[in-house]
Amino acid sequence: MLTVFGSTALDTIRTPEKTLKDVLGGAATFAAISASHFIKSGLIAVIGNDFPKKYHNILSKYLDLEGLVELDGKTFRYDGKYDKTLSTRKTLKTELNVLANFKPTVPESYKKSKFVYLANNDPDQNISIIKKFDNVKFSMCDTIEFWIQTKRNSVIKMIKSVDAVVINDEEAKLLTKEHNLIKSAKKMMEWGVQYVIIKKGEHGSLFFFEDVIFPSVAFSLENVVDPTGAGDSFAGAMIGYLAKMNNTDLSTIKKSIIYGNVLGSFAVEKYGLDGLLNIKKSDITKRIKQYEKMVKF
Amino acid sequence: MLTVFGSTALDTIRTPEKTLKDVLGGAATFAAISASHFIKSGLIAVIGNDFPKKYHNILSKYLDLEGLVELDGKTFRYDGKYDKTLSTRKTLKTELNVLANFKPTVPESYKKSKFVYLANNDPDQNISIIKKFDNVKFSMCDTIEFWIQTKRNSVIKMIKSVDAVVINDEEAKLLTKEHNLIKSAKKMMEWGVQYVIIKKGEHGSLFFFEDVIFPSVAFSLENVVDPTGAGDSFAGAMIGYLAKMNNTDLSTIKKSIIYGNVLGSFAVEKYGLDGLLNIKKSDITKRIKQYEKMVKF
Repeated sequence: MLTVFGSTALDTIRTPEKTLKDVLGGAATFAAISASHFIKSGLIAVIGNDFPKKYHNILSKYLDLEGLVELDGKTFRYDGKYDKTLSTRKTLKTELNVLANFKPTVPESYKKSKFVYLANNDPDQNISIIKKFDNVKFSMCDTIEFWIQTKRNSVIKMIKSVDAVVINDEEAKLLTKEHNLIKSAKKMMEWGVQYVIIKKGEHGSLFFFEDVIFPSVAFSLENVVDPTGAGDSFAGAMIGYLAKMNNTDLSTIKKSIIYGNVLGSFAVEKYGLDGLLNIKKSDITKRIKQYEKMVKF
Repeated sequence: MLTVFGSTALDTIRTPEKTLKDVLGGAATFAAISASHFIKSGLIAVIGNDFPKKYHNILSKYLDLEGLVELDGKTFRYDGKYDKTLSTRKTLKTELNVLANFKPTVPESYKKSKFVYLANNDPDQNISIIKKFDNVKFSMCDTIEFWIQTKRNSVIKMIKSVDAVVINDEEAKLLTKEHNLIKSAKKMMEWGVQYVIIKKGEHGSLFFFEDVIFPSVAFSLENVVDPTGAGDSFAGAMIGYLAKMNNTDLSTIKKSIIYGNVLGSFAVEKYGLDGLLNIKKSDITKRIKQYEKMVKF
């Protein structure tokens, strides 16, 4: 099984076309539900006692919730607004609420997870959580600007302590102080991580392992309505596919990245989580085939 | 044969590492020399009587120069400065000089060219030049922000009058007033062009034809020293390869784009034109193989 540790949120998302208020979101929610299309996924996260029943039902439909903790207080809330091109998002408000004092623990039944995804949490928390698993075969983490700015040394320590880091391009540059993404990835590998995946949004991603570079394009879409969670869906699909195959050889990882691109594309086609819900195995397989046909020359 | 019409310049290029003064450049110079690795290429361009003999020797080594006109006065000069990330360039000075009053004509021996590349010239000049060829099988043009801002209707008319347009992403958005690149390409196709290639610099390119989208990545490079002329080298290699194959079916065009990516990568590895000079057929073949291996999954 796969364990995902990270945030579950109530998001307010403002796009040029539409504003969604207090919808189900959070990095771990996107990653775990994306992964659940491949493998049984457990979620370690916290919600407040205001968390709507209907969202709890969605989570329980897709995920194992033994690791989901409910605390007195309000659920973590995020409010962000996209510009008219949907390419940049401005944070209007972040309310940590119950997340502020959450002390995550790993349920016994999750400790045997061979695949673990640590979303963009406090790096010190990620470092301590990963140690609680008995027999990890492949661990992967993400991070965000906030932690790079406030806890850069812990971020570096976290990167050392996992097998793979998935990070977006601007954050990779900020973290490593390198403009060139190959140099940036090399620096992270020098810090002690084996695999680096740099996400470039609509431009796809770059994967690095030893002297291998595998660039891949995003699935081309004409109608993008809400980019929220695309990168988390990418990472979730990647590790979900690896867990399903129970294999981390190079060709399986490359394939997992294609799955990442495809799940990311489902995520941005609809608002909030809707793009990841109600997709069938056959929809994923069909889009994988379209992707393969699209990039062939 | 292939004819390339456009500018030959003396460039001053300021990069964080190095400043080059009055070096051989210009969109048509890059495109034609890139294309010359595939096919005999004629250049329609103008130089002043200050044009250094050593640069003339370079041009004549690679190109047919019957279309190169020397006028009294100074050669077109461009002066630009890259930021420290090499991702944006600021124009410090443009001196049109002899380019201002150049009335291009097509030499008799060029009129039979079946492949014609019109670089980022005045769109009205491009429209009138393309009519002078007897039997064009495939014509392609580029454009730049300056013409979109000052002669948008002529740019649209030019796009109607060629088979393919190659344009960078920001300019495509500006021209079509669309944020999404697929929508942008569709609009250009509605205007009457059959093929659209949107260049995205280090992120590769998107090719469009009817309902086909072919995204391709750039060749990943760790050491980029000077991006000048990369897009022109891409376009030159593309049309040079098509001319060599004398074929414009879909799979040949896709292959030509891979050659475009590869020649673009040679261009940015060295300063000015140096990356395109002294490369052998075997260097190109080798990098094509590396590219194919790199993107395989």
